Amino acid sequence: MSGEDIPKTQTAAIVRKQGGPVEFDDNYPVTLPGDDEILVKVLYTGVCQSDLHTKAGTATGPDGNPITKIKLPHVGGHEGVGRVVKFGPNLNPTDKLQLGTLVGIRFLSRVCHECEYCKSGRDQHCGKSTNHLHHEDGSFQEYCVLDTKFLTELPQDIDPKVIGPTLCAGVTAYKAVKNANIKEGEYLTVIGAGGGLGHFAVQYGLALGAKVLGVDAGTEKQRFVESLGAQFVDFSKCKDLAEEIKNLTSGGSHAVVVTSGHPLAFRGLADIARIGGSISIVGIPPGEVKLDAPVAAIVIKGLKIQGNLVGSLKETLEAVEFVRNGKVKPHVKVRPFRDLPEVYELLEKGDVPGRIVLEL
Amino acid sequence: MSGEDIPKTQTAAIVRKQGGPVEFDDNYPVTLPGDDEILVKVLYTGVCQSDLHTKAGTATGPDGNPITKIKLPHVGGHEGVGRVVKFGPNLNPTDKLQLGTLVGIRFLSRVCHECEYCKSGRDQHCGKSTNHLHHEDGSFQEYCVLDTKFLTELPQDIDPKVIGPTLCAGVTAYKAVKNANIKEGEYLTVIGAGGGLGHFAVQYGLALGAKVLGVDAGTEKQRFVESLGAQFVDFSKCKDLAEEIKNLTSGGSHAVVVTSGHPLAFRGLADIARIGGSISIVGIPPGEVKLDAPVAAIVIKGLKIQGNLVGSLKETLEAVEFVRNGKVKPHVKVRPFRDLPEVYELLEKGDVPGRIVLEL
Amino acid sequence: MSGEDIPKTQTAAIVRKQGGPVEFDDNYPVTLPGDDEILVKVLYTGVCQSDLHTKAGTATGPDGNPITKIKLPHVGGHEGVGRVVKFGPNLNPTDKLQLGTLVGIRFLSRVCHECEYCKSGRDQHCGKSTNHLHHEDGSFQEYCVLDTKFLTELPQDIDPKVIGPTLCAGVTAYKAVKNANIKEGEYLTVIGAGGGLGHFAVQYGLALGAKVLGVDAGTEKQRFVESLGAQFVDFSKCKDLAEEIKNLTSGGSHAVVVTSGHPLAFRGLADIARIGGSISIVGIPPGEVKLDAPVAAIVIKGLKIQGNLVGSLKETLEAVEFVRNGKVKPHVKVRPFRDLPEVYELLEKGDVPGRIVLEL
Amino acid sequence: MSGEDIPKTQTAAIVRKQGGPVEFDDNYPVTLPGDDEILVKVLYTGVCQSDLHTKAGTATGPDGNPITKIKLPHVGGHEGVGRVVKFGPNLNPTDKLQLGTLVGIRFLSRVCHECEYCKSGRDQHCGKSTNHLHHEDGSFQEYCVLDTKFLTELPQDIDPKVIGPTLCAGVTAYKAVKNANIKEGEYLTVIGAGGGLGHFAVQYGLALGAKVLGVDAGTEKQRFVESLGAQFVDFSKCKDLAEEIKNLTSGGSHAVVVTSGHPLAFRGLADIARIGGSISIVGIPPGEVKLDAPVAAIVIKGLKIQGNLVGSLKETLEAVEFVRNGKVKPHVKVRPFRDLPEVYELLEKGDVPGRIVLEL
Repeated sequence: MSGEDIPKTQTAAIVRKQGGPVEFDDNYPVTLPGDDEILVKVLYTGVCQSDLHTKAGTATGPDGNPITKIKLPHVGGHEGVGRVVKFGPNLNPTDKLQLGTLVGIRFLSRVCHECEYCKSGRDQHCGKSTNHLHHEDGSFQEYCVLDTKFLTELPQDIDPKVIGPTLCAGVTAYKAVKNANIKEGEYLTVIGAGGGLGHFAVQYGLALGAKVLGVDAGTEKQRFVESLGAQFVDFSKCKDLAEEIKNLTSGGSHAVVVTSGHPLAFRGLADIARIGGSISIVGIPPGEVKLDAPVAAIVIKGLKIQGNLVGSLKETLEAVEFVRNGKVKPHVKVRPFRDLPEVYELLEKGDVPGRIVLEL
Repeated sequence: MSGEDIPKTQTAAIVRKQGGPVEFDDNYPVTLPGDDEILVKVLYTGVCQSDLHTKAGTATGPDGNPITKIKLPHVGGHEGVGRVVKFGPNLNPTDKLQLGTLVGIRFLSRVCHECEYCKSGRDQHCGKSTNHLHHEDGSFQEYCVLDTKFLTELPQDIDPKVIGPTLCAGVTAYKAVKNANIKEGEYLTVIGAGGGLGHFAVQYGLALGAKVLGVDAGTEKQRFVESLGAQFVDFSKCKDLAEEIKNLTSGGSHAVVVTSGHPLAFRGLADIARIGGSISIVGIPPGEVKLDAPVAAIVIKGLKIQGNLVGSLKETLEAVEFVRNGKVKPHVKVRPFRDLPEVYELLEKGDVPGRIVLEL
Repeated sequence: MSGEDIPKTQTAAIVRKQGGPVEFDDNYPVTLPGDDEILVKVLYTGVCQSDLHTKAGTATGPDGNPITKIKLPHVGGHEGVGRVVKFGPNLNPTDKLQLGTLVGIRFLSRVCHECEYCKSGRDQHCGKSTNHLHHEDGSFQEYCVLDTKFLTELPQDIDPKVIGPTLCAGVTAYKAVKNANIKEGEYLTVIGAGGGLGHFAVQYGLALGAKVLGVDAGTEKQRFVESLGAQFVDFSKCKDLAEEIKNLTSGGSHAVVVTSGHPLAFRGLADIARIGGSISIVGIPPGEVKLDAPVAAIVIKGLKIQGNLVGSLKETLEAVEFVRNGKVKPHVKVRPFRDLPEVYELLEKGDVPGRIVLEL
Repeated sequence: MSGEDIPKTQTAAIVRKQGGPVEFDDNYPVTLPGDDEILVKVLYTGVCQSDLHTKAGTATGPDGNPITKIKLPHVGGHEGVGRVVKFGPNLNPTDKLQLGTLVGIRFLSRVCHECEYCKSGRDQHCGKSTNHLHHEDGSFQEYCVLDTKFLTELPQDIDPKVIGPTLCAGVTAYKAVKNANIKEGEYLTVIGAGGGLGHFAVQYGLALGAKVLGVDAGTEKQRFVESLGAQFVDFSKCKDLAEEIKNLTSGGSHAVVVTSGHPLAFRGLADIARIGGSISIVGIPPGEVKLDAPVAAIVIKGLKIQGNLVGSLKETLEAVEFVRNGKVKPHVKVRPFRDLPEVYELLEKGDVPGRIVLEL
């Protein structure tokens, strides 16, 4: 496909104001790529809780206040995959990047390459970064512009349907599990195991050698979590979850990964963790929820608590490799692009096992 | 000195019941060493906050409740140094261990050598360990029995006056700083910089390459902290400590070590820490004090929070090496053994810069 | 079985002088356990190249000279597994260690627990250690005495037939692969992939996420190596092995593990390794064989070369866990104890795929 | 200084053909900066052995053959420091980068930012990189063009006279020492301690806590090495260097860094190193010199051998921080630019203590 074929307008899922509805605009302009940019035709995109929070105006910043400063109209989507359809004026195809090449659309759209975080392989913390949630239009549109200097170059032999959620939920879960530094045969407890983040954490845990306990509620989640290879613990049926985990793990879990954002998910973590163990957190609770852990227990048990915000570009590609080689299988349900409003409703209720992917 | 010279009784500082006074008993029996044990004549001993807490019955266990199960009468002291005066029946002197050899008396008295913690170099977490605080008589007596299978063999060229506090406060501070994994020129903030733990943390931080901010209050502490080479921050004069630290460090401290156990010392830590930074905790607040940090900030800033309970035998010897080569100078005030009750009073008031050591 | 049942004599495979034959002595005395020791009835034992080298007098010390100072008559065997049949006079059964408990017999028999290596989790380098090859009788006898202070406590649910070789060849291969620090999807090349050490290295590599190239020669080895899940490279059919590997790995192997001791196995390693890659060596060539790698290439390519001598007790148990959970399957051929002389002949010819285990 | 002030021609030290002399051309054209580039007025530049080797045609590639493909006429120099005098057409000054800002001129001039090495913080191994030795004109000229996407942004409070050699010799030595992973009080032996690389290695070793033995020959080198704080070992007076080092270190050096490129510097390294120790190599011998270490010793002693090629941009800035804070003091002798031919003669003789810096 050459430059001539790019239409002037396209269909995009837009939000005109925070708290308002998501609408489909069939005459949304297509942006053309500038220097060092490419244009990508979006094939599939996952839907992330943070898309929903940003749309609804309930996303929480580091200060505990809602994030309100976003580009409007807002086009979300940052678990996307697409194919290159046009190069910026100063670019030519290379061996690795040609028309048709499969690339990813992630949360971060651009970074500065110069700050202490970019230089030390922690680009996800770049203070001058922009993202496809607050600053630039993401993958909830047919054509998306990407910066080639921060491009998510995918292996070309992956299934484009399943890879989108790996670029956000997947890498986040991967990093949390990796940070837990589990040794072969040690216990990993995943809180929220049946969700989008959780089902990734369970599988990365198994791939990295852990015996995994998956905590969630209900028989549907149970069937799902067990099908992934984990032992299921139904918190709704436990009198005391920490006691239950301690019994199942002979004294406490070597690692705990919290993938849920529900305030109750942060209770009793210091009890669940084994002496010398680690607690990795990726779920973000709304508002000013504090970590419900006694300082004395953190010190005396020598616990490590680690917050994880997605991952770097390099870590993303590491996470993708596990999907490529089949050790991690994202559980996705493909639905048409137009179902986005319905998907948001499901996410609000919180009963989505695995991850929903939209086909554009 | 041969076995014949060991007296039958000695002077010991004993506590008959928790909450009661510390008394001197000049007819306390000397225990003789059994198999694999040695008897040591105590030269000097530091005095630790946990001695005071145990005596007073205010020591906190991992569950937030007071620790009440201790050997009575109780003889504290676990920052001791002494010389070998007698070998157990099955032992003979070796090149390294002879009559007169300088050895340390630490918190832990014995470990199992077999559990997951002993086998992985984390003997301080051994569940079958005994210690010189709750189970065995420590260095607040003239003669102390030690297990040669878990012996703190000191370099023989150190100053016995200063090394005692290194074996508990020193290694604790060392490990907290080491866990923070600071790079040359990065900022380390020490909360409680003028105290026994704090003045060690400041010096280990400087020795490991950090720029150190020492937080404490008052002009005496200021003079002391500045004499160690740190920049002083008087929290009693700051409107907003976190803002002050953020200004001084261009955005937040790469590492924060909390050496105070005061509940207020745990406020605002997530604000003080830089994005991607670490918070190492060694101070243990009384009761059920929780970590006052929003989960959202921990995740979004990618913070690491690490609890530190003293250190292993190997880490203790690492910490000692810095004192031996003069990079860390324990600030000790030597007082006679009989001053122990007075020293407890000073510790209760909390205004001891550095560490007090008793001469036996 | 109580102490009364232990016979006074037993069958042992003894070597009366280095270079002489291995003979079976049916009246070899049974040693009774002393303090802190147990007696074990040997069930199975692997046969290691180093048994053969020691018997033959061709074992090489760190100085390149033959190791000649060994206990005579010599009883080899250090890949053994057995059950406890008697406790030393000062020992009682515990929860973990009872009559009938399955334990391992490894190369090292005792360590000092006090030196720099013992204290830092590298007990395999303890300078005061003794072993079941040069100093104490090993598992080529029916009853073997073990030190409980350095005991290889096995999981009780493993298959005793296959675990012996894991305690020496297995952990050696595991450590070499672990030291290579491979990331998911990176290339690992195993030189000598079809041998006892090699077939372990291939499997640990796969379990730790590598794409494995197995180098060996002949169709039998090819079938075997491919059955393990590796891609086979027949060095006897390559014009230039390094070129072949570079082609298969797009520029060089991220990690190379040399499990063969043949002098030719050390040729061209710097060419096979990728820029920034690592070379782990476990095979020990006879005599004064040097590493055939140009210094300029080591520096300019930034290569890491690591020698690996078995592993620590802790690393051994890590290696065992992979066998317990089925990710690594030792390929063993069980033969009667009396076949030992024949097994030595096979090992001398070098055509044993996997590992031979003797049943006692 | 604005763009108008840039002269059309300048003085540069050029080499017209490999093996030929270095000449001064006072009419060498000044290149103007293109997009994303800046022009820098060079203040000072170090002189590196590799400048000399490239000029002479004796530089060795990874294959052991001379590197012959270089830009001609050749302008060397890659230990330079200068001030920004002009921005490329698409650039504007920023807070951090303005006219007058101090920046470094290093060996690498450009990298691809996309390969496995660039993405993993090992940009020194980028296969598409260009450098100021073989591809682009370096700091042996008055005005040098630099790529702002790979710019060495220096702290503005450093001494420009001493920082040049830190950007090549310094970071190389720093990385070699850092890779050795020394613990406080362990022994580091530096082979070639009195040279440009060596005097850096000695100082980084001391700053990172090692006890340093400096190996070199002669009383001038002795005075110099001792003045840095190391213990001197004169190899020309040792009957057996390895024995001497083993005696001084109670059994072998924990780490050995080889900074000399002389073939004899690679002899006996496996003997000098302690069991479990490491050998870091930065010196590159000419031709096909092999590592003179028996494989058996590497395996049985568990040695790690690491080649080090300069360091990444990030590691360079880490190395610079030690110079900025005064822990490492580059020993430089400043001479006029026109002395370059004489300096080459001195380097050929090999008797330069520290490093020579030219003032432009």
